[in-house]
Formats: sequence, structure tokens, C-alpha cells
Amino acid sequence: MGLPPTLEWTVDERGDGALRLIDQRRLPRELAFLDCRTVAAVADAIRELAVRGAPAIGAAAAYGVAIGALAGGLAAAEAAGLELRATRPTAVNLAWAIDRTLAAARSAAPEPGAAVEPGAAGAVGAAALGCAHDIAAADVASNQAMGSHGVALIPHGARILTHCNAGHLATVGYGTAIGVIRAAWEAGREPTVWVDETRPVLQGARLTAWELQRLGIPATLVADVMAGSLMASGHVDLVIVGADRIAANGDVANKIGTYSVAVLAQHHGIPFYVAAPSSTIDAATATGADIVIEERDPAEVTRFGGTVIAPLGMPALNRAFDVTPAALVTAIVTEHGVHRPPYHPPI
Amino acid sequence: MGLPPTLEWTVDERGDGALRLIDQRRLPRELAFLDCRTVAAVADAIRELAVRGAPAIGAAAAYGVAIGALAGGLAAAEAAGLELRATRPTAVNLAWAIDRTLAAARSAAPEPGAAVEPGAAGAVGAAALGCAHDIAAADVASNQAMGSHGVALIPHGARILTHCNAGHLATVGYGTAIGVIRAAWEAGREPTVWVDETRPVLQGARLTAWELQRLGIPATLVADVMAGSLMASGHVDLVIVGADRIAANGDVANKIGTYSVAVLAQHHGIPFYVAAPSSTIDAATATGADIVIEERDPAEVTRFGGTVIAPLGMPALNRAFDVTPAALVTAIVTEHGVHRPPYHPPI
Repeated sequence: MGLPPTLEWTVDERGDGALRLIDQRRLPRELAFLDCRTVAAVADAIRELAVRGAPAIGAAAAYGVAIGALAGGLAAAEAAGLELRATRPTAVNLAWAIDRTLAAARSAAPEPGAAVEPGAAGAVGAAALGCAHDIAAADVASNQAMGSHGVALIPHGARILTHCNAGHLATVGYGTAIGVIRAAWEAGREPTVWVDETRPVLQGARLTAWELQRLGIPATLVADVMAGSLMASGHVDLVIVGADRIAANGDVANKIGTYSVAVLAQHHGIPFYVAAPSSTIDAATATGADIVIEERDPAEVTRFGGTVIAPLGMPALNRAFDVTPAALVTAIVTEHGVHRPPYHPPI
Repeated sequence: MGLPPTLEWTVDERGDGALRLIDQRRLPRELAFLDCRTVAAVADAIRELAVRGAPAIGAAAAYGVAIGALAGGLAAAEAAGLELRATRPTAVNLAWAIDRTLAAARSAAPEPGAAVEPGAAGAVGAAALGCAHDIAAADVASNQAMGSHGVALIPHGARILTHCNAGHLATVGYGTAIGVIRAAWEAGREPTVWVDETRPVLQGARLTAWELQRLGIPATLVADVMAGSLMASGHVDLVIVGADRIAANGDVANKIGTYSVAVLAQHHGIPFYVAAPSSTIDAATATGADIVIEERDPAEVTRFGGTVIAPLGMPALNRAFDVTPAALVTAIVTEHGVHRPPYHPPI
């Protein structure tokens, strides 16, 4: 069983393009795809977690800007950028990919006030789509580079704990943290993986478990509460996770619960690694304190799948991310290599 | 809305006794009761978590021994003790309550070889039932004493994080950790509570949330993964939890995830308190390393209710408890007072 593309650009027999996504809300029950033909459809897919993971939502948003540009030229692309930027606040790849695609669109647009040449609108759309393709292709290459650098961190037979999903499904392909595990697996290092289920949205139980099973990498699911017990009993050799935004000082925003795992790893003297493309590093954000943490619907906490688990009217708080201070991070793996503190900007 | 008894002895119009339990598996959906008329029914209720919480399963097992004694005298009581002791391995209150009830039954039994006097079998049953009543009544009194001692640990307006359910439903009444919170509430200290949902069985979301709501104590539900983030953002003043077994050196076995919360509390300089009756202290267990940790069905992790959350065939590990070393525990509250390390036995 292979892994189909997390997202890809498809063109139907009439020549109309669409962004085709694995609908991650339906995993692991079924592998289903969602075709997004409008900017609004892409924005909904990001907001509702049909596609999630910082690199994947970056690429999806780039295609969303391209859909706008193809339909209505630069003005529509700019409007698409505004709409898509507002979908989720924490992952910086989203803004990065939107900015890059808009810059490509702008560079293909006629000068303001210039006579519109025939084909100018088409040129804007083509430039935006070309940029989205570049971002998607670069993401896979970047993840493979991360894997080849990161494999040096993985001893033979390592028992690795990961949180959330920083794999194929969080990227255009191959994965960041899971990409490093894949590279170690492909290099014959025989890693095994503890998969944190990752409440409340269960990306670990639903997505990482599904991916690792398809890849044939031995993995065991645990409730998030078990990480400390596993470390105390000597069953975890290292932790590796992805990132949604890395501040200039090396503080890491990632899925809620990552910080707890990092504190536990430090307490047990276990290395804690972060794998993320350099587009995740936000030089404009000095420290983690400046990162906006998304709060999502409390119903994600009070319900479990379709089942209500809390009494009616029970208040709940649902922070989607937390910040792990740089001091708890042993090293950061990017496509450029393995970076250890103290970091000299850029990481 | 009050809180009906977690468990009580009822006698029907024919004079037959039964242990009536709140069926905690059905909370918070509905408040339903389960009448256990046989030893096997009590054992099933404990094993299947219809009744849970160390003090509550101790009292339930005492009534289970009494049911055996009433039906078949000392031999049946001894058999009941064996059956009930095997239901769950970690909580020491279970063995403690069984031993105490059996001792009462034995003391009412005729000498081996003596002529059986009329009414001797009835005397054994009555002695066992009387002991179970004593254990149940003492539990409530003990929890109220714990509350009156523990209230000194709760500053005005304290924001308290608790894990699992160590409340009314975990005891015969009033609660241990939640009992301390109740006492602070009744003393006008206006505590508020962060309720860890407590995967995999969700005792926090289902039971603690229900209890606190009925008591009118302000509480907010969070996924277990949020505890670290809440501490880092300065929203937790103290942690208080219950215990299933406390070793002679002060190491505390409690619901899986407790250890992670304790490590996080230490990392943030937040007091971490344990409230438990002295029957939870096991002088025969030197350290936490000697405590047997129950592993439960992996399906508790891979499913919730009818919903499968992991791919088919995904392995899972399900440790039900973990051990928090004494060094991470700021103080232990028992019915005798607040005990701070170094502990001089008995705690």
C-alpha cells in the first residue's frame, strides 16, 4: 500500500483545473479525495482540517491563490490571499506560500495604468500556478533532504516518540519528522515508533498510525498521557516532531501537547528534535511569546468523534498549539542540515 | 442538583440485600444505577469500571465479600475475597478492604471443628456486612477530614488542575482530591478547576466534569495535552490528584498521566498535592517500582464508544496507571493531616 499524494493539481477533460486533496477528516475510515475548484473551497478545506500540517496548508494556499488568479487575474489573486491568510493564524508557511505566489502573480501582471495586453490575465494565472507547482515540488525535495540530514540523529533500533502528524499527510509528500523516521527506516536502521494519539483532533491515531501502517514501519499507538510513563520505564530513545512556526530565537510552535513532551524529554535526558522546512522559520517573530496561538471550537474537546463525552453545558478550552522554548530543543532539522543551539540567524 | 450515593446497601421488600452502584460507564449521558446481588456481579462492576476509584472499589469489594458471606458463610466469603482481589491489581484499598471484611467474617465464624451453633452462618454474614458498612461510613468521614485539613493548601481564588476523577464518584462520598476542592469551595475560597479529560477512559470529561457541574464549582474541561500550556501561560496555581496506592517511601501510583502532570508542575514551580485516605498507603510496598501497573484492553485506546479512531490492526499499549516519585509530590493529604517529605513512616 503506497501513499497517494496529499494534494495535487488536476485538470479535467474540459481543461478546468482543481486542487485535489486527501480529505483527512475521513481517515482512517476511508481514503477519499476532495476537489477544490474555488478559493472558498480551498479556504474551507484548510479551516475544517480536510488538509492540515504547516507545509501542506502552505502548498494548498498557494494553489488557492492560483485558482483566484486563473479565474480573475491579479485582483482575484490578492482577494484570495486575504481570504486564505485568515483561515488559520499559527503556521507561518501559510503566509509564506501566499506571499510567494502573490509575488509571482504580481510580476506577471501589467504595470498599473498600462494598456492591458491580450493574454495578460492568463499570464498572471499561469505565473501563480507555476509558483504553486514550484512550492509543491520544493516541499517534497525539502522533506527528502531533511530525511537525509536527520537520519544521522537516529541510532539503530531507536524507539522514537512522535506527537501529532508531521508526515506525508502534513506535507505535499514524504513528511518532516516522519520523513526523518522514513529515511532511517529506508537506511535499514529499524526504528520503531510510539504514536501519541494527539487529542483533541487525533492526528496521531487517525493519520500517523495510518501512514506508518502503510509504510510498514512498526508503530504502537498510545494515549498522550502515556508519554511520561514510557520515558520513565526506559522505552523512548528520542522524540521527533514537526513545527508550525519557529521564532528567530528557536522557540517552536507546534501542535498542543508538544511542549509537555519536550518538558518530559528534558526531565528524562532524552533528545528532543524538531524537523521542519526553513519556510517554517519566521525571522520576523523574535520569540515564541510573539506567536499567535489559534483557539479552536471547544466542541473538539467536549466531543470525541461523533460522541458527546462531557456533560451538556460544560465549558472547555481548546488551544490548538503550544510553544516549546528553544532551551528544550536538542536540534532542529531543516533541508539545509541539522542545527544545534545557540542558533546564529538564520537557523 | 445533589450527588446520589456512589454506592449503598439496599434491601428489597423480600429482605434481600444488594449493592446499588451508580453505573459510571453511563455518565454523563444518564444517571443510572446497577444492583449487584452476587459476588460475580460486584466483580464485573469493578472490572468493567461501572465503579472505579480506589476508595470506591474498596468499599464495593467489602460489600462483595459480605454478599458472599450472607449467601454461603465463611467459605463463600473467602472465595469472594479471592475473586474480587483479582479484578484490578493496582489500587491497594481493594485488598485492604477485602482483608478487613474477611477478618470480621472470620472472627464471627465458629472455631474449626467446633459444633456449628444455630445462627453461626448468619453471624458471619452480619459481621461482614457490618464491616462493609463501617468501611463505607469511615470513607465519607475520612474524606471530609481530608477536606478540612487540605483546605489550608488552597489559596483564595486558586486555579486548580486535577487529573482523572478523585471525587464523590471515586469514593463512597465527598471525594479525596475533589473533596479538598469542595472544602475550599464551602469555605468561600472560590477555587476554579481545570479538568483534564483523562484519556483513555475519560474519567475527567465524563465524571469530574459532571460532579463539579452538579456542585456548582466553576470548572473548564481541557484535553490532557493542554496542561503544560496552561502552566506555561500562568493559569495554574496548584495541582491536586488522588492516588491508587502510595508506597512506603511516598511514591504515588495514580491514573496514567498523573506523572506527566507532576513533572510539568515541578518544571513550573507549581505545588503538586495528593489527597488519599491512609488505607491507600501500602507499608508493604517499599517504592513505586514494586507497584504492579495494570495494563488494560488496547481497544480503550483504539476506540471510543462505537467509534474506531485508529486504522484496523493498529497495535496500542494501554497502561492504566503510572508512578509519580515522592520527590515530585509537594505534600500528601490524608484524614490525619497534611504530610510533607521527608516522610517518617507511617505517612
